[in-house]
Amino acid sequence: MAPKASPESPWLELPAPLPLDCGQALEGVRIAYETYGALNAARDNAILVCHATTGDQYLASTHPITGKPGWWSRTVGPGKPIDTDRFHVICANVLGGCMGTTGPASPGPDGQPWALRFPGITIRDMVRGHLALLDALGIGRLYAVVGGSMGGMQALSLAANWPERTERVLVIAATAAMPAQNIAFQEVGRQAIMADPDWQHGAYYGTGKAPDAGLSVARMTAHITYLSEASMHEKFGRRLQDRAEKSFGFDADYQVESYLRHQGATFTGRFDANAYLYLTKAMSYFDLTEEHGGKLAPAFAGAARSGARFCLVSFDSDWLYPTVESRRIAHALNAAGAAVSFVELSAPFGHDSFLLDVPALDRVVAGFLDR
Amino acid sequence: MAPKASPESPWLELPAPLPLDCGQALEGVRIAYETYGALNAARDNAILVCHATTGDQYLASTHPITGKPGWWSRTVGPGKPIDTDRFHVICANVLGGCMGTTGPASPGPDGQPWALRFPGITIRDMVRGHLALLDALGIGRLYAVVGGSMGGMQALSLAANWPERTERVLVIAATAAMPAQNIAFQEVGRQAIMADPDWQHGAYYGTGKAPDAGLSVARMTAHITYLSEASMHEKFGRRLQDRAEKSFGFDADYQVESYLRHQGATFTGRFDANAYLYLTKAMSYFDLTEEHGGKLAPAFAGAARSGARFCLVSFDSDWLYPTVESRRIAHALNAAGAAVSFVELSAPFGHDSFLLDVPALDRVVAGFLDR
Repeated sequence: MAPKASPESPWLELPAPLPLDCGQALEGVRIAYETYGALNAARDNAILVCHATTGDQYLASTHPITGKPGWWSRTVGPGKPIDTDRFHVICANVLGGCMGTTGPASPGPDGQPWALRFPGITIRDMVRGHLALLDALGIGRLYAVVGGSMGGMQALSLAANWPERTERVLVIAATAAMPAQNIAFQEVGRQAIMADPDWQHGAYYGTGKAPDAGLSVARMTAHITYLSEASMHEKFGRRLQDRAEKSFGFDADYQVESYLRHQGATFTGRFDANAYLYLTKAMSYFDLTEEHGGKLAPAFAGAARSGARFCLVSFDSDWLYPTVESRRIAHALNAAGAAVSFVELSAPFGHDSFLLDVPALDRVVAGFLDR
Repeated sequence: MAPKASPESPWLELPAPLPLDCGQALEGVRIAYETYGALNAARDNAILVCHATTGDQYLASTHPITGKPGWWSRTVGPGKPIDTDRFHVICANVLGGCMGTTGPASPGPDGQPWALRFPGITIRDMVRGHLALLDALGIGRLYAVVGGSMGGMQALSLAANWPERTERVLVIAATAAMPAQNIAFQEVGRQAIMADPDWQHGAYYGTGKAPDAGLSVARMTAHITYLSEASMHEKFGRRLQDRAEKSFGFDADYQVESYLRHQGATFTGRFDANAYLYLTKAMSYFDLTEEHGGKLAPAFAGAARSGARFCLVSFDSDWLYPTVESRRIAHALNAAGAAVSFVELSAPFGHDSFLLDVPALDRVVAGFLDR
């Protein structure tokens, strides 16, 4: 199905090459983005929301492919916790993505899709893309940067490397360094994609084939890690799907099997497999500690000096980015002398809690962003 | 690579068709098994050890394909917790397996491999196979049935359905009903296999191809669930593998990635993909509650009458079969009036703790089996 087009979003072509952590510089990078609410005259009410791995810029507007509401439309909008009557909210598709921003499905210098010739990227490279966009939009300092999961990593990277660019930093269900178990789950997803013969070493664009089967398996694996055992038990238990008896075959017997198959199949309709490879690898690479001499506190020295305020949120049922990861960041911020509040919320939905109906999160978000 | 041969083990062809839960009966079933230690004159010192999903009958002897020591050789042998100087230990490859016992790689009635024509099986069907073997060996009542993980499910099924056949039941890191999250992980593994074009709808025998790539991904996913996050952090952390810098490509950068790839690749050399499908499906189907009218305690009424003694063991770091699963069984046994001891052991290795160096487990096993 790849590559996917995204005609709806505006995009901006960066005027200068974008330097990357790998040492290369990318020319002609396009950043596709959506905005909500008006930028005020002082240009100081902008909030950058960073999306998660398989998210996109359609934060609070209808997704052009699925037709579904934006992934954070419960949180972003007029009168909502991120109040677009007060704030100018920007959400950009990340570098390496597949919804309009330059990524492996985009044309390379020779006009052919980059595919695996696209350079390896990092979370910090994604942030470089965001900042170049903000520069072009004339936004010097953000009121806040906000993100959950991979979005939270971008928020942390921005605060650590460009602390003068934001007043507040809201990080939800994230980590300062990908744990080994998460690297492992992401590697399994990549192996599933690369094992699919239709992947063709990444050069599947224009062949009429794409590694949908492998991407689907990758999505299914990841999806399990986003949910809590309790929420799966509650939602599905051991209930059979559209049958009274076991099949004694390999069809989906259980609702949870059918649900996962559906999640995998629909995902391939909106996501590019190579983008999945690049984005998950960037997450596996993420380690603020490594970028700052092996210790985390020094990563936040600049943020402490700039007076940036931090808020960290974790969920008690999130086993992919458990509370201990946020606590470690809170300790480092305290050690660096930065202003930080940290809360573990009780929510049943596992890692996905940041996307779902958790009123306590709404209150934390609204409260932290209040002037 | 499939099917795998197992010339070393003795095997026994069952004299009568084996009735299955699906309603069919299998003729000419072969059960391959290993024994250790001598059966005494009273024939009352036999211990049946049931193996886990990807285990086999090579409990305490060299594996014929890998050349590695048996999977429980640290526990079973002369003077060991399951003392072969005192006990006659039997371990049979399960029905549906691929190490000599009849399974999907075995010849069907027409002489061709069964492949997907092999009937769907259950944990109880595996136990029927074990009991038919014991009948043939002239062993009426076991001194004990012992198993971890899928082996523990077989032990529970034997105790629930044929309580007169064993004096003691030792169940390690198991469950009485597969939780939704485990069904989900197993479904992902099956999808990875079935998505591999070399699977050929199961009819890959004799084609020179087998779904090794899919089976490898299935194994990698499962392997993550067998370990604890803490043990992965301890063993691998974020250490790079044979390189000083990130590759910015899709080779294995991290030790944990390299380790998983190795686990996946070596597994395909000793296991049949269709057998993996059948065995994981049998586990997903496992629900003692369902077999006994929706409540667990009645499943153990017969065991309570027969005077069978139970011991349940869980590990605090096992998130695949967490302590709550064992506690539920203990409560049901208590409610049924059966004799049960239950212990949660502290061990760092996750679900795999039952196979690794946990001295406390040795003491529990030896103590429970002491006459």
